[in-house]
Amino acid sequence: MERVGGWFKARLEKMKNAISGVGKEAKRLGKEDPRRVVHSLKVGFAIAAVSLFYYFDFSFDGFGVNAMWAVMTVVVVFEFSVGATLGKGVNRAIATLLGGALGVGMHDLVGFTGEEKIEVVLLGLSVFLIAAMATFCRFFPKLRARYDYGVLIFILTFSLISVSGYRADVVFDMAYRRLTTILIGGAAAILVCIFICPVWAGQDLHKLTASNIDKLGTFLEAFGHAYFQESIDKNQASLKDYKTVLNSKGVEDPLVNFAKWEPRHGKFKYRHPWEQYLKIGSVTRECAYKIDALNCYLNSEVQTPLELRTKLQESCTKITSECSSALTELAIGVRTMTCSSSTEIHIVNAKSAAKNLKALLQTGLWPDTDFLHIIPAVTVASLLIELVSCTVKIADSVEKLATMAKFNKPDPKMNRQTSLQKVKRIPSIEVSHNFSIVVD
Amino acid sequence: MERVGGWFKARLEKMKNAISGVGKEAKRLGKEDPRRVVHSLKVGFAIAAVSLFYYFDFSFDGFGVNAMWAVMTVVVVFEFSVGATLGKGVNRAIATLLGGALGVGMHDLVGFTGEEKIEVVLLGLSVFLIAAMATFCRFFPKLRARYDYGVLIFILTFSLISVSGYRADVVFDMAYRRLTTILIGGAAAILVCIFICPVWAGQDLHKLTASNIDKLGTFLEAFGHAYFQESIDKNQASLKDYKTVLNSKGVEDPLVNFAKWEPRHGKFKYRHPWEQYLKIGSVTRECAYKIDALNCYLNSEVQTPLELRTKLQESCTKITSECSSALTELAIGVRTMTCSSSTEIHIVNAKSAAKNLKALLQTGLWPDTDFLHIIPAVTVASLLIELVSCTVKIADSVEKLATMAKFNKPDPKMNRQTSLQKVKRIPSIEVSHNFSIVVD
Repeated sequence: MERVGGWFKARLEKMKNAISGVGKEAKRLGKEDPRRVVHSLKVGFAIAAVSLFYYFDFSFDGFGVNAMWAVMTVVVVFEFSVGATLGKGVNRAIATLLGGALGVGMHDLVGFTGEEKIEVVLLGLSVFLIAAMATFCRFFPKLRARYDYGVLIFILTFSLISVSGYRADVVFDMAYRRLTTILIGGAAAILVCIFICPVWAGQDLHKLTASNIDKLGTFLEAFGHAYFQESIDKNQASLKDYKTVLNSKGVEDPLVNFAKWEPRHGKFKYRHPWEQYLKIGSVTRECAYKIDALNCYLNSEVQTPLELRTKLQESCTKITSECSSALTELAIGVRTMTCSSSTEIHIVNAKSAAKNLKALLQTGLWPDTDFLHIIPAVTVASLLIELVSCTVKIADSVEKLATMAKFNKPDPKMNRQTSLQKVKRIPSIEVSHNFSIVVD
Repeated sequence: MERVGGWFKARLEKMKNAISGVGKEAKRLGKEDPRRVVHSLKVGFAIAAVSLFYYFDFSFDGFGVNAMWAVMTVVVVFEFSVGATLGKGVNRAIATLLGGALGVGMHDLVGFTGEEKIEVVLLGLSVFLIAAMATFCRFFPKLRARYDYGVLIFILTFSLISVSGYRADVVFDMAYRRLTTILIGGAAAILVCIFICPVWAGQDLHKLTASNIDKLGTFLEAFGHAYFQESIDKNQASLKDYKTVLNSKGVEDPLVNFAKWEPRHGKFKYRHPWEQYLKIGSVTRECAYKIDALNCYLNSEVQTPLELRTKLQESCTKITSECSSALTELAIGVRTMTCSSSTEIHIVNAKSAAKNLKALLQTGLWPDTDFLHIIPAVTVASLLIELVSCTVKIADSVEKLATMAKFNKPDPKMNRQTSLQKVKRIPSIEVSHNFSIVVD
């Protein structure tokens, strides 16, 4: 008896722990990005509203069973960002229209034959052909990027209408009702998504771009300090944050696709040059690969002795601090959509520091030292020199964005510290938008 | 009149070109991976079959409108690989069962109150709460990775049943029918997917892993030749193929998730260690970042003069060729699921070549040369030395996989050339599985 009681107690304890664990995780997720909580409430609200509409038969008097398509549309179309929701909604509406029209047409066409056996064969054949062709279309990269969901819904609507319509003999009416209810559901989802605390994919892409550039700057700053000290905490966040940048492509690509669906909002005008963000992302990643190489030298077991390293300290820290400042300025510039004026100066300084470093290397700093000992430091130095040109590339691509999007002149009253805070305070965008990108 | 005719002719010509362009692209996509064509035909067949089932009211006598859920399930669940299809199918079935049960339960519970106003409020509230909570659950990373689709379908079924059920007063019956038709549709999709030319996500992941390792080997081989020549074609494929490896994470993660759903097939036993592929992928990418750095030195404008470079030629090409052989052997080993015996030797050779290179650097090869001139070559040399340890890491992780998955001893009769061919002939897996990963 006692043993059974103990067993139950242990089980209960375990369950308690599991539940509190989930609770803690939920709290963390909510704190990390409160928009997640808001999004959940929005979805709940939209679904409940459309469900009750349906329940009351309020405006659905004639819709009957078809009314459930409204609820379905809300559930399926409602995404985290406005762009994703709009994209799915528009895809669904147009695909239903096209699929429905083709389905009705096919039904009428087949009806002309008059004989049932031929009709069945023709219907089966047409569903087979259209479904197979449409499925193949999903492999076209350009189509897939923006209209994958639409093609799926097209196949769905076409087969449902062309085949089921035949039985009820109310094909046209049915197609019409389905389209109307889908429009109602889609409209409900889009309206709630846009007008209650909207989440703009474009804005998140913009923030992400700024924060990725900033992460590189933060690393360089920290690296400059860390490399010339005997013992440093290699696990500090500023030396590890850059790792998410390495795999950022999987997040940026869909965000750009979503952003293209979005209307003008905030500081983003219609036809904002979203494609340019891909280019900035590409050069940012290029820079991140180099930074990854630098990081390896920080953690490497084979090191140039510190007393030899210190000879390079001045020029190297000059480069890291100037590049870091330039990158941070660029990040602030992107974030606040202003043309940064001081970036130029930092880049010029970094270039001259690189020149000094080169000259320094030329002088034969370590006359009687084992060549092997100095290789790591020389490699770090040459990587730093390359990082200057990487920074220039990032600056160029950001400048191009600034021209295309007509960034403002910097506001002298703007508080740099506040802007910097804004760049840093980024909730983890990947998780919020449901991309399964994790750092290695 | 003539001008209108000309205009029409030009238009017609343009349309012709566009159509032939699409046709060419379709042909290319089909040739690149013929499984795409087969997949399209399979989807067409499954949808047509289920549609005709529905049409004939064959076994759907009692299902009525609910029968369309079978068609819908086939369209939505049928994915390129068996794992993805099984995952979606199981998710959909379980979620429909749970959502339906909870919907029926909620409907009964609310029915006890007796008064309609209270009922409406309770129903609306329950839909709101459950939808909001379930939506928030989608942000949990672990849940999302495998059950995202299920949660969506759960919300959908729950709201449809709990609200619409009330009106028809046939809630239980409706839920039962929906579940049955979904099971029929899901079964049709899964059977066609598994038994007609199946595409296994696990197999593709396996091939992808092997081909990624091989791409690194190919680069190293080509680099060894290219770096010590005056003018080379820097655009040759062998020097560029590695770039897809940099962004391979976005493809590997979902493939691992799909593979976990798959039953044993081919050489892959139940509980094949799919997670280990993520680890191999991670070290492969690490190696690819270094190779990207090497590639930069190949294309850099600042180069060590060729006559200085040649002093390192022997040791460097020894490292590249040994590492390349080791990587190629590893790729063949993974691809054919055999423990490669010669990898060990190549790695030992590479290590000793690295040692030689280090010793060579120590001797002061370039006594009276400008230090700045030799930095690029020294950096390349030190990168190559690091690549040896990267290769060791890859070899270790592959060996771990070999132990976990019980790879066979190598077959002496196995033709190395044929195996190598097999590793290379990889259709672009990313596009086939509908991942939108493109090279920068």
